Amino acid sequence: MQDCIFCKIVKGEIPSAKIYEDEKTLAFLDIAPVNIGHTLVIPKEHFRSIYEIPENLLAETMKTAKKISGVIKNTSDGVNVTINNGGAAGQIIFHFHVHVIPRLASDGFGPWHGRRPYKEGEMQEVAQKISSQIL
Amino acid sequence: MQDCIFCKIVKGEIPSAKIYEDEKTLAFLDIAPVNIGHTLVIPKEHFRSIYEIPENLLAETMKTAKKISGVIKNTSDGVNVTINNGGAAGQIIFHFHVHVIPRLASDGFGPWHGRRPYKEGEMQEVAQKISSQIL
Repeated sequence: MQDCIFCKIVKGEIPSAKIYEDEKTLAFLDIAPVNIGHTLVIPKEHFRSIYEIPENLLAETMKTAKKISGVIKNTSDGVNVTINNGGAAGQIIFHFHVHVIPRLASDGFGPWHGRRPYKEGEMQEVAQKISSQIL
Repeated sequence: MQDCIFCKIVKGEIPSAKIYEDEKTLAFLDIAPVNIGHTLVIPKEHFRSIYEIPENLLAETMKTAKKISGVIKNTSDGVNVTINNGGAAGQIIFHFHVHVIPRLASDGFGPWHGRRPYKEGEMQEVAQKISSQIL
């Protein structure tokens, strides 16, 4: 896609610190890392987010993310594998990408878990609502 | 696996607010949600984290996460799809699971991006080091 930074990285028009490449996917270092070694894994073909990427290409991209995670874990205390979809979720470049983020016990990033508890009876209602819309 | 909460949910020994189920995977609401509708997608078979889960089962689990994301996006401003591997990365239940988290523009969760910039020359060195260990 024209004017997409990641497409330009795939084509070699913009340099990157490459980690891994195969037929369908590419992995390179994030230039604004959470921690050192923070890697982005992308499909070479342009798709905006998880909603648009075909299942088989998502599988290929995750296979590469798994490979990278297996290496990064050796020099960290844990690994977050994260896909941000949409600006409100933190997506900045609108070419689907998987963050593989080394975590350190000392890095002090706060958890989000449990920030919005369910009210009485709300949980089953929400589950039913989401469930009914799955095709 | 004995004493695994998620294995007990799969077997129906512990109740859950179920969202979706197929042969290999199960999706249900997180009881301590970041935002309402926060869903967990798991493989029915027990694996600890992304390092251990086989590629094809990872693909199946992500396929389900993609389905759920496509629904959750309709009532949110964005979706984070996240896998925490290891306690330091925020993993609490040691049965592989994918978080599908609805995000709201107003939820105020801070980004981590860019918290540890590279020093001069460090980036290529790190890329080479990770790259050389990939099998």
